[in-house]
This record gives sequence, structure tokens and C-alpha cells, in this order.
Amino acid sequence: MTDAAQTLDGWYSLHDFRTVDWITWKMIPAEERQEIIQEFLGLVEKWNKTQTDKQGSHALYTIVGQKADFMMMILRPTMEELNEIETEFNKSRLAEFTLPAHSYVSVVELSNYLPAGEDPYQNPQILARLYPELPKAKYVCFYPMDKRRQGADNWYMLPMEDRRNMMRSHSMIGRQYAGKVKQIITGSVGFDDYEWGVTLFADDVLQFKKLVYEMRFDEVSARYGEFGSFFVGTLLEEDRIPAFLNV
Amino acid sequence: MTDAAQTLDGWYSLHDFRTVDWITWKMIPAEERQEIIQEFLGLVEKWNKTQTDKQGSHALYTIVGQKADFMMMILRPTMEELNEIETEFNKSRLAEFTLPAHSYVSVVELSNYLPAGEDPYQNPQILARLYPELPKAKYVCFYPMDKRRQGADNWYMLPMEDRRNMMRSHSMIGRQYAGKVKQIITGSVGFDDYEWGVTLFADDVLQFKKLVYEMRFDEVSARYGEFGSFFVGTLLEEDRIPAFLNV
Amino acid sequence: MTDAAQTLDGWYSLHDFRTVDWITWKMIPAEERQEIIQEFLGLVEKWNKTQTDKQGSHALYTIVGQKADFMMMILRPTMEELNEIETEFNKSRLAEFTLPAHSYVSVVELSNYLPAGEDPYQNPQILARLYPELPKAKYVCFYPMDKRRQGADNWYMLPMEDRRNMMRSHSMIGRQYAGKVKQIITGSVGFDDYEWGVTLFADDVLQFKKLVYEMRFDEVSARYGEFGSFFVGTLLEEDRIPAFLNV
Amino acid sequence: MTDAAQTLDGWYSLHDFRTVDWITWKMIPAEERQEIIQEFLGLVEKWNKTQTDKQGSHALYTIVGQKADFMMMILRPTMEELNEIETEFNKSRLAEFTLPAHSYVSVVELSNYLPAGEDPYQNPQILARLYPELPKAKYVCFYPMDKRRQGADNWYMLPMEDRRNMMRSHSMIGRQYAGKVKQIITGSVGFDDYEWGVTLFADDVLQFKKLVYEMRFDEVSARYGEFGSFFVGTLLEEDRIPAFLNV
Amino acid sequence: MTDAAQTLDGWYSLHDFRTVDWITWKMIPAEERQEIIQEFLGLVEKWNKTQTDKQGSHALYTIVGQKADFMMMILRPTMEELNEIETEFNKSRLAEFTLPAHSYVSVVELSNYLPAGEDPYQNPQILARLYPELPKAKYVCFYPMDKRRQGADNWYMLPMEDRRNMMRSHSMIGRQYAGKVKQIITGSVGFDDYEWGVTLFADDVLQFKKLVYEMRFDEVSARYGEFGSFFVGTLLEEDRIPAFLNV
Repeated sequence: MTDAAQTLDGWYSLHDFRTVDWITWKMIPAEERQEIIQEFLGLVEKWNKTQTDKQGSHALYTIVGQKADFMMMILRPTMEELNEIETEFNKSRLAEFTLPAHSYVSVVELSNYLPAGEDPYQNPQILARLYPELPKAKYVCFYPMDKRRQGADNWYMLPMEDRRNMMRSHSMIGRQYAGKVKQIITGSVGFDDYEWGVTLFADDVLQFKKLVYEMRFDEVSARYGEFGSFFVGTLLEEDRIPAFLNV
Repeated sequence: MTDAAQTLDGWYSLHDFRTVDWITWKMIPAEERQEIIQEFLGLVEKWNKTQTDKQGSHALYTIVGQKADFMMMILRPTMEELNEIETEFNKSRLAEFTLPAHSYVSVVELSNYLPAGEDPYQNPQILARLYPELPKAKYVCFYPMDKRRQGADNWYMLPMEDRRNMMRSHSMIGRQYAGKVKQIITGSVGFDDYEWGVTLFADDVLQFKKLVYEMRFDEVSARYGEFGSFFVGTLLEEDRIPAFLNV
Repeated sequence: MTDAAQTLDGWYSLHDFRTVDWITWKMIPAEERQEIIQEFLGLVEKWNKTQTDKQGSHALYTIVGQKADFMMMILRPTMEELNEIETEFNKSRLAEFTLPAHSYVSVVELSNYLPAGEDPYQNPQILARLYPELPKAKYVCFYPMDKRRQGADNWYMLPMEDRRNMMRSHSMIGRQYAGKVKQIITGSVGFDDYEWGVTLFADDVLQFKKLVYEMRFDEVSARYGEFGSFFVGTLLEEDRIPAFLNV
Repeated sequence: MTDAAQTLDGWYSLHDFRTVDWITWKMIPAEERQEIIQEFLGLVEKWNKTQTDKQGSHALYTIVGQKADFMMMILRPTMEELNEIETEFNKSRLAEFTLPAHSYVSVVELSNYLPAGEDPYQNPQILARLYPELPKAKYVCFYPMDKRRQGADNWYMLPMEDRRNMMRSHSMIGRQYAGKVKQIITGSVGFDDYEWGVTLFADDVLQFKKLVYEMRFDEVSARYGEFGSFFVGTLLEEDRIPAFLNV
Repeated sequence: MTDAAQTLDGWYSLHDFRTVDWITWKMIPAEERQEIIQEFLGLVEKWNKTQTDKQGSHALYTIVGQKADFMMMILRPTMEELNEIETEFNKSRLAEFTLPAHSYVSVVELSNYLPAGEDPYQNPQILARLYPELPKAKYVCFYPMDKRRQGADNWYMLPMEDRRNMMRSHSMIGRQYAGKVKQIITGSVGFDDYEWGVTLFADDVLQFKKLVYEMRFDEVSARYGEFGSFFVGTLLEEDRIPAFLNV
């Protein structure tokens, strides 16, 4: 058996990025657009109910730049539910006016580089992090990442002790941003193309840049981090959806 | 002659990933959709017959995320049959409402890092693995992979003995997941862009993550594994197909 | 805490590259095209007003080659404003005849490899660089870049002192082009796929080549620079827009 | 002058991969489809005539998986002829129902790591290999490749003698497959994105995998081979074309 | 100041690759196609006039393989003119039946690894190379390239003297092809994604392969060359345009 760090796993997660096809959206009558918006708000209402029932959570953000127009981040207890929500959206009328832009499949994960002895699943703080209610922060940042396996910079060939120490120092940086940036790590080994997804929430968008930049000088990122595409967005509150889609 | 490990090869395999064009699918009358679903179920019925006759096997899964909507994995004794099944699907009415998303061509393979002496093709356990009936597990995971040939990390320059030892330790990890994860390795050297395809089946989707993550710390993966895209999906039973396609 | 260099951050920036769909553009009546051009000029007029009010800045350039037909570079105090401008353009009639070609999200940044003691945000010269009015130079050049983290060439593992010295020598090259090339660095760590965007303005397009080429021999670029796509364009003055779009 | 190995060059080669647009193909009347098939068979008839006249050769294969539906491999004495055949196909009616999937431009090449003294162009065996009639084997395999130039693994920096020895050992492997796999090497330096194309023909598709896999352990491939996409297909005899296109 | 080699720069260059949409092209009436061809020949006539006036040059080639159907290479004194020609073509009727396939923006460049003392811009031979009339050679080859900056193989970290010596030896190879291959180097640092474009002209297409292959063994290419896509084409004389577009 290898000395892979044990992980704690919570809700499954789908990041679903969409681009609006504004041209066809503008072609249909205003009343039809209103009906379609209402249908979509109905979906969101169902998701709200699930969130109230502590059976999942979700977040909606508009994305800045051409990578996508908006992102739906959905947390649920099972992959089946993610698949159903995705399919339900795909069959919705709004989907006829959107194009898939990017998606990411993962599971909320806490890395367990911790001393043994305690049952983490009995710890309310840990449970709150495994089954989180996504915050209504003004901004979101999402990016996937790998630990590097390249020549002398091979994370997976390091002794457990070294990895633990580096991760501890790494998490120290994150802690300095406590209260400024909320960070949700989702594991995607076996589920999607990178090993982890990182979703950051903040009310000051500049904190994303400061945090990610500072971490880049930390050995874990500097030598061992491989990063995918970065997405940044602004909160799309439900009551702002009709205005966002108003043409 | 090189000391390439000998492989045992079974059925040829096609992984065929498709995305549904829900927009055009919704445009046609409900009865027409029913006819098309029936035609597709007729194809599946033929595949079932082949499977009953032990002349092949197949599996249908819906895929989570935007990479695809569903996957058909088909095993057959010849490449011609794979080609025919693919072409038959392409000519079917359902194909008019799907887009190709990804495919993978390979052959079920057992790596033969085993002591000589025995004729493996006389071994019923080996035959069962070369010509497997795909399980009806709740979840599937597929990814292609290469053995790395990069600077000091060049698998193909290692002595046979080293490769054999590393593969033995590697397979030990897999064995710990016996009963939890069924693993089908298909070789694709000369057939597709990576050297192998890995298809995992499990009733607990988290086992994919645990297995792949643990293996990543094993030297074979840590130093020598190069991975392509990962696809994860949930079982699409035949009787769930009409509901899946119901709009 | 790492010894990451502190940065000074100004206006948020969106580079928005578009390709004109000339085929559909030619299909509509000339008067309709005129209305659409007028609507777009109305948007530009609003941006001009914002610029006059020192609440942002913008620049319009036609791009040479097939990568895009034109670029809108927009600076604003908040991400929300960038998002709104982008969405407003997407909902405009002209957008129906353009395709997204590329975009970049970042924030005007001054790297602060400077002696401590002074409050840079009190320095009028620094403020002018953080909240710049984009020049009406004849040519623009845009490219994104990373600092390399590869084997022995890992910028983020260097001591602060080494980085500071190299950046000082690097900026010396830039200074030789003072009066010839205006350079705006925007940081995009956490916002987009590269770490920085570089936007150059000049009245002699050859100076872009001379500057970038000379810098490439400087250790910062030679060993540590990773560059994305380069875009080069010519000034699209407002009064040239109708001619540019005239078919 | 460098000690580049001299090559012998024969017919120019175009690999043209196409995907059938089955949706539009099914839309037209059956008689129209028949006419279009007849027109295409007329093209093939012309190519047959050229082959009979020893002025070129060609092969048609259906491709397994989504990369393409079929491949036309065409050999001709001049680039102009390849260009004309390609344009003639593009203007044909069948082309209206196909999409370009991939192509490769090269020239039949024999590497001349041989003792000097003999004029190879007087050697009938060599001429037969430079101007080959493509076999009607049941299966085809195509992939492009480069010789690596990376750090310590730089083929082009090796002494001629080392390259010659490695190539000799490499060709020994190929010879073991004599009678099982026919191999046509085409050079594409200056013509297409890789340095060589490899086209293999066999009546047992598994021999492709065995050959390519065994070669991968040979130093030439293990340290110096960089491979592009692999395509595998089954023979599309002329009399099978109407059935293949029958919908 | 770095010891970057000084360059001499001549006309700006646009390589514009296009794919014909034969399907829509065939849909319009023959007379309309004739008008469109005449309009395009009118553009070419203007370019001929510019060439006669020594104010630029151009070349038209059909491209072999699916990368493009034809290439227009345009040389002009300013970027604005390139931009105008590109936009004029985009607005032309023929453009409605073509798709952009690739483009490259650069400037004719002579690398000045020469002894000082002489004013190169007074040298008629140098002027003829900076402002060349493109030859009517039977074949063209185009590819972009970078000088490598990777680990121990970093061109930009080499002393000027070493670079000069290697370039001298490199140009010796080129000289052996004098009379067989005409080579035009265009610099694209700051203008496009690679550092240089190489355009070769020859009446024997095989000379491209021989030249590029032989150069690959030279240290400048072997250790320091990074190559993009290769395009090869055959001369498209004006009087062959109607036949090329005849359907």
C-alpha cells in the first residue's frame, strides 16, 4: 500500500459553464423569453428548496470575458443527482439558447494530512466543510489543478512527511486570507481531467489575485502546481437573472 | 528482439461517446421521437442477443458533465464488427440527434508479466477476462494512458525485470479494490492515440477516486504514467433510455 | 508568508477580440447596417464620457490577420462594469454580426520591486499609471505571459533579491523605448489563463518587434518568460468605424 | 555540410480522411444518392486506370472510431496531381456530404543508411518500394512521427554512426513482421507537421499492435520517437462502397 | 542593453490561408460565380499594379491537403495596407465562399550577424532582399519557427559569438541550395505566435524536404529550432484561377 494521504469526501460537485446565444435569444418574442426565464427560475427554486433542506447547495455567477456567460455550481450527495440536474437543464427551454462552454466534475474534499486518532466525520466543523452551503459572495474564481510529476519535481514521489510539511505551510497562506476568501477544494482524480478543482469566493475580487499570486511562491505551487484555465465571475442573484437575460 | 512484455489480447473494443442535440430533438413530434427510441432499443436488443451468445458485450452509461451525454462501450471479436456497429448507429435515426464527442479504439489486453510455462489461452479465468461480459455496475470511469518516455523517466528504456517488479506492486493496489472496482484494460498501441484505455466499473463512484489516487503514488503511475481525459458516468439501463430521452 | 513581490493594482481590464461575420453583415439592408453602426457608436460615446470623467478608459483597434477583426480594450474601476459592458455589447445589434475571437481579463498592475518607505498610492505618477488614459497610438500589440516554473528555470523558487535584480535590468530595456513604446502591464493571476497581459502602444509598429526581441535576450524573458498568442493591430478611430464596417 | 542521411524519394502521397455527414446524406432522394455514388465510383475507376498504368496507386479504407469515416490514400508522381485529385474530390457531389477530418502530405521515402557504391535507383527492389502498388490488405494503420530533439534525447545531434546502428536494429524488428505487415514510410519534412508518416497494411489487425508495441522498446522509438494520432481502418473494396453508403 | 542581433526589416507580410466552401459555391448560378471570379481577379490586378510599381508584392498558391485550399502571401510597406487588403478581401464576394484557415503576420527580415561598418540600407543586394518581388516558382513551402528556450538548450542565453557562428554555419547549408530554393525569412516577434516565418520557393518540391531535413541536423535547428505547422502548395497563376474555381 502506498502512503497516499487519506481524503475526506463530501458532496459531489458540478461546475457548469454556459454561453448565451444572444442572437437566437433575441429572435423570439418577449413573452416567450419571459416564460423561459420563469421556467429557469423554477429550476433554481427547486435547487433553493434542496439547499434549505441541507441536501445540496448551488451558486450562480456571470463570468467575465468570452470563456462563458454564466456558471452554475451544483453540490449534491450523489453523481446521479448531478447528472439529472444537468440533463434537466439541457432539456429546459433556456438551454436551447445556451451553448456548453466548460464543465468540471468533482467531489468536495478535505485533505487529511492530520494526526490520526479522531474520527473526522464526527467533527461538526469538518462536516460543515464537506457539505457546505455555498456563500453569496460578490465574486467567484474557479480553476483546476494538478500536482506536477515532472523530472525532479514529482510530487507523487516525495515522502509523505515532506508532502505534509509543504501542505501545512501552504495552508498557512490560505489562513491569512480567512474572512476574505472562502476556499472550496474539490477532488477530481478519476472524475475529470485535473486532480483538483479550486473554487474561491470573495467580496473583494482582488483577493483572488493576491492569494493565488502569493501561493505561487510557496514551494507546493512553485515547484508542484500545474494550473488549468481560470474563470472569474460576479454573483448572479436570482432577482438579477431577468435583467441579465433581458434583451 | 526487444524484451517487450508479451500481451494476451481478447475482444476488440470501441468506446463511443455522444452528445445529444436536445434542441433539434425537441423540434420533432413526440411520436417520431418514440419511433426513434424504439429503433435504438432495437439496436440494443441485437447487442443483447450477441452478448447472450457470448459473441461480444456492451455497456451504456450517461456521462456527467459536458464532455458527452452518453457512452456506448462495445466489445466484439473483430474490428469489422466494431466498424459495422458504429456505422449502423451513425445511419440510425437517433444519430441524427447526436454529435460525436469522443471515441476510443482498443482491444482487451492482459499484460503478461507472468512466469512462462502455462498456456494462458487454456486458462478459463484468463479467457473470462479476455472475453468479459461487461458488468451492470452503477458507475463507469474511462481514461486513456501512456507510459512515459521523458528524460530519466523512460519506461521503455527500463530493464524487463524492473518493469515486472513495478507492475507487480502496481497490481497489488488494484487487488485491494477487488470486489469494489472491476477494471478492464484495453491496449491501443497502433489503434488509437494513447497506449492503453482503462475502464473501471463500481457501485460506489468514490472508489474510482480512491483507486486512481492511490495508484498515483505508486512509482509506475507517479513516474511513468501519462493520463488523457477522464470520463465518469452512471449506468443507463435499457428501461431508463426512454426516460433519459424524454423531453 | 512568502516573499512574493507586492503589487499595486489599478483599473480592471478586459481585452475583447471580435471577428466580423461579413457574410451575414452584407445580407441586411444598408439602412439597417447604418442603424447598427449608430447604435455601436452610441456605446463608444458612453465609453468616451466615462473616459472624460476619468472613470475608465478604452481603445479600439483593428487586428491584422485572421485571429480577429477588431479589439476593444476596456478599463474600469470594477469587474462588474467590465461584465456589464461586455454583456451590453453582446446584446447590441452589432454583436449579432460578430463572433467572439479571444478575450483577456486582468487588472492594471505595477510590480512593486521598489524600496519601502513611500506610500505609492500618494504618488501622482504611479496613480497615472494605475488609472491610465489609453493612448491613441497608431498601433497596438497584445500578448499574455507567464513566468516559467520548469526544472532549473523556476522563477517562483528564486530569492526575492535575484528576482528584483533581474526585473530592474529588464525594466532598463523598456526604458530605452520610452517615448517610442507605451507599455501597460495587467496582472491576471486568478483572473485568466496567464499571469500577465502586456499591451504595447506605438506609432511605429516595428518598435514592438525591436522591444520584444531585445527583451527576449534578457534573462527574465530568455529563461523565465512563457508567451501566449500575439495580436497586432492598427488604431480604429471612431470616425473610421463606419468605413471599416462599410460593405 | 551536415551528415544527414540521404534519402531515396518516390511517389508523392496524400492521406485524405473524411467524415460522412449522414444527416444530410439521408435527406436526399435515393436515386440522387445512387448518382452520387456512381460519380464517386467513376473517380475511383480513373484512379484504377492510373494504377494499372503504373502511374500511381491508391487505397480506400473505412476508419474505426469517430476520427473519420473513411480514408483515401493516393500516390502520384507529382504534387500537382495530388492537388488535382483532392480538388476534384472536393468538387464532386459526394464531397458535399463529407467533412474533412484529417490529411497528410508526404513522399514515399527509403532511408539510405546503406553502404555506398550502388546506384539505388537502378535496383528493381528499391524501385518497387519507391513506386509501390498499395496492397489490398484487410487492415490499415496510419500515424505520423518525429524523431525527438529534447534535452539529452536529441536524435539530430547524434553521430551518423549511432543513428545508422540504431536504425539497423530498428529495421530488424520490422523484418520479423515480413509477410505479416507491409510498411510504407513517407517523408514529410517540409511538407506536413511531422517528419514521417507510417502506413501499415496487414490481414491481421493485431499485428499492428504487436509491431508498434515491440518497436516502442527499441531505443529509436523509446528515446527518440514522438508519435501523432493513430488511425486504424478496414479495407473498403470498391464493391463494398455502395453498401457502406447505403442508408 | 542586451547583445541581441540587430535585424534589417523590409516589407510587412501577411500569409492568408483560405479554405473554399465548395458546397455553397456550387449552389449559386454559374454566371454569378463568373462575376465573383472577375471581382477577385480585379483585386489581383490591383496587386499586380502595386507590384509593378515596386510598392509591394504578392503570391498565390493552392495548398495541398486539408489545411487550406489556397494561400495569398502579400508584402506591403505598412501594416495598414495589409489590414486593408485583408479587409477588402473579407468584404469581397469570393470571401463569402471561403473560410479562414490560417494567417501569419510578419515583416521581411535579414538577420544582421555581419561585421559593422557598412550601412546595409545602401546596399542594393540587401534592399532587393528586404523589398523582394516574390518569384513565380512552381512550389511554395511555409512554416513558422521559434528559437528554443528550454533547459540547457536556450538560444537566448548563448553568447552572441556562439549564435553568430552557428548562424553562419546554418546559412552555409542554405547557400548550397542557391538557385534551387529561394528563401524569404520574415520576423514576427511581437506580431504573431512564432518568432519567424520561413517561406521557401522552388521549382522542384523535393528540394524543400532536402533543405529542411539537412538543416535539421545542423545545431541551430537540431538543438534550438521549434517548428510550427508546415504548408506546401503549387503555384496558382492568375490564368489558372478560373479553372481552379470552376465547378
